[in-house]
Amino acid sequence: MVTATDRQFSGMAGTGRLLPENFFVGSEKSMKLIRFDLNDGDAHPRIGVLHDGSIVELRGISTLDALLRSHDPLAAVRGSIAEPGAARHALDGVRLLPPLTAPEKIWCIGVNYQDRNAEYRDHSELPKYPSLFVRNVGSFVGHREALIRPRVSEQLDYEGELVLVIGKAGRHIPRERAFEHIAGMTLANEGSVRDWLKHGKFNVTQGKNFDASGSIGPWIVTADECDPRAEHTIVTRVNGETRQQETTARMMFPFDMLIHYLSTFATLQPGDLILTGTPTGTGWNMTPPRFLKPGDVVEVESPALGTLRNHVADEA
Amino acid sequence: MVTATDRQFSGMAGTGRLLPENFFVGSEKSMKLIRFDLNDGDAHPRIGVLHDGSIVELRGISTLDALLRSHDPLAAVRGSIAEPGAARHALDGVRLLPPLTAPEKIWCIGVNYQDRNAEYRDHSELPKYPSLFVRNVGSFVGHREALIRPRVSEQLDYEGELVLVIGKAGRHIPRERAFEHIAGMTLANEGSVRDWLKHGKFNVTQGKNFDASGSIGPWIVTADECDPRAEHTIVTRVNGETRQQETTARMMFPFDMLIHYLSTFATLQPGDLILTGTPTGTGWNMTPPRFLKPGDVVEVESPALGTLRNHVADEA
Repeated sequence: MVTATDRQFSGMAGTGRLLPENFFVGSEKSMKLIRFDLNDGDAHPRIGVLHDGSIVELRGISTLDALLRSHDPLAAVRGSIAEPGAARHALDGVRLLPPLTAPEKIWCIGVNYQDRNAEYRDHSELPKYPSLFVRNVGSFVGHREALIRPRVSEQLDYEGELVLVIGKAGRHIPRERAFEHIAGMTLANEGSVRDWLKHGKFNVTQGKNFDASGSIGPWIVTADECDPRAEHTIVTRVNGETRQQETTARMMFPFDMLIHYLSTFATLQPGDLILTGTPTGTGWNMTPPRFLKPGDVVEVESPALGTLRNHVADEA
Repeated sequence: MVTATDRQFSGMAGTGRLLPENFFVGSEKSMKLIRFDLNDGDAHPRIGVLHDGSIVELRGISTLDALLRSHDPLAAVRGSIAEPGAARHALDGVRLLPPLTAPEKIWCIGVNYQDRNAEYRDHSELPKYPSLFVRNVGSFVGHREALIRPRVSEQLDYEGELVLVIGKAGRHIPRERAFEHIAGMTLANEGSVRDWLKHGKFNVTQGKNFDASGSIGPWIVTADECDPRAEHTIVTRVNGETRQQETTARMMFPFDMLIHYLSTFATLQPGDLILTGTPTGTGWNMTPPRFLKPGDVVEVESPALGTLRNHVADEA
């Protein structure tokens, strides 16, 4: 998707200026925020903003978590970019990391798109409330990194999802104020190890928390650019073949309802992530099931957010 | 319980020395680590160590999370205590906070003590694996703070639990090495909002994550003092009446098994907490159920760890 900002960036080529002076004014506030390292053995995570296909490094900002919690995140970014001699890096020359380091909460919605309940073939009625579980940050890698199929299972599966990034704390948030709490959006492959989902008497926690079994990124797109109020489509492909394709218009629990519901019991904090549920079409639900194997390439794509791409490798 | 260290502390009274020189040598390494603030409107969390009934403040240590992740936690504490003029605070004069600020994972075991499975009255066989769910750090308060009964429910219930604090990272940890990864232990009231446990199609997440619905503390007791290899008893009282009473000898999944199992899928990190399951006898399982109401006082106690006490208040 070419945005007004992308066009403006292109128009800046050759002027010598790093960013247009009015970059953060009005609709030009758009940003893709990136966490990355130089993949050079001395892996030191850095923060940057995508500019005209390359990354402008933001010095003085150690984590996006801290940035989102700061009083005026945009001012912090503006101040950092204004520093003379900000380093630039080719997008292809760095390693992208999961954007957030230590979100307080990574909420995952279990059954959201309308046809997904039927996939369970349990003859249950449509749920009244969202199903909810939690992942830990170590269960995710960044864009272009390997998803790890663990030693103990051959049932690694993909789940493409749209992700909300919370920018403003709140409890008991009414639906009509919900969008004010969204800082941006990103994509996730909420990778699942199917035979470990029902190990215990309750809950799917184990199969959702294997190290490096999912991915998140490539970046956080700020809300003014991606517009969480708009309809979003999401597509998941395995080795180029479309497996999942959906639109947010068919969610049983749309974004504003999720924010309202989750904030009924727990204060949402800046940096919290809400993985909003996966469409039908996971490998587990095919006949026979088709799980991921080493060498497979999984892509999760949404027009306003980009493409999150990962290959699969076996645990060492 | 009077430990060797407590006796040594008592013997120090009046010598003018802050701590014995050999405090951290051999069996004298024992510590109760405390996070607290002065409850003075300018609430700035501090770290301290319990000494002879009062708190010695550890300067230069901003969080216990960071301390546990440091190369040599004991050396850091030693260095801080050695600073001249370390402040002391009366234990009763400060507000105790949950010991850890931002654990990467707060794992909660769902059904562990042997009779607990029968309490579900679902005629199921004993589980082969632990049931697992996750809480967020905001769902806990510290010792002596109010547990909050939320506006949306009258079913707040207690669950007394022993908690393992991880001190050393590891994946695929064999049972025989498991205890090396425990930095210490603490207590939790894993407070639950019963009618929100099964809101969704799967998982108990909602009812386990209400703001300030549980508590943790009063402190972290280092492993050399509490000995995770030993048998521990746990008692929960409501308004002085014993409701839960159990011993770790009757766990289906003992501590070393939990560490082995959890590390099969996710790397344990320093600061991770494992809430090891609650005994029978919750209010929910009484006939008729007896839930917590404002003014009730809940105590969770274990001889080597102390007593975690909280009162109940309604959400404002």
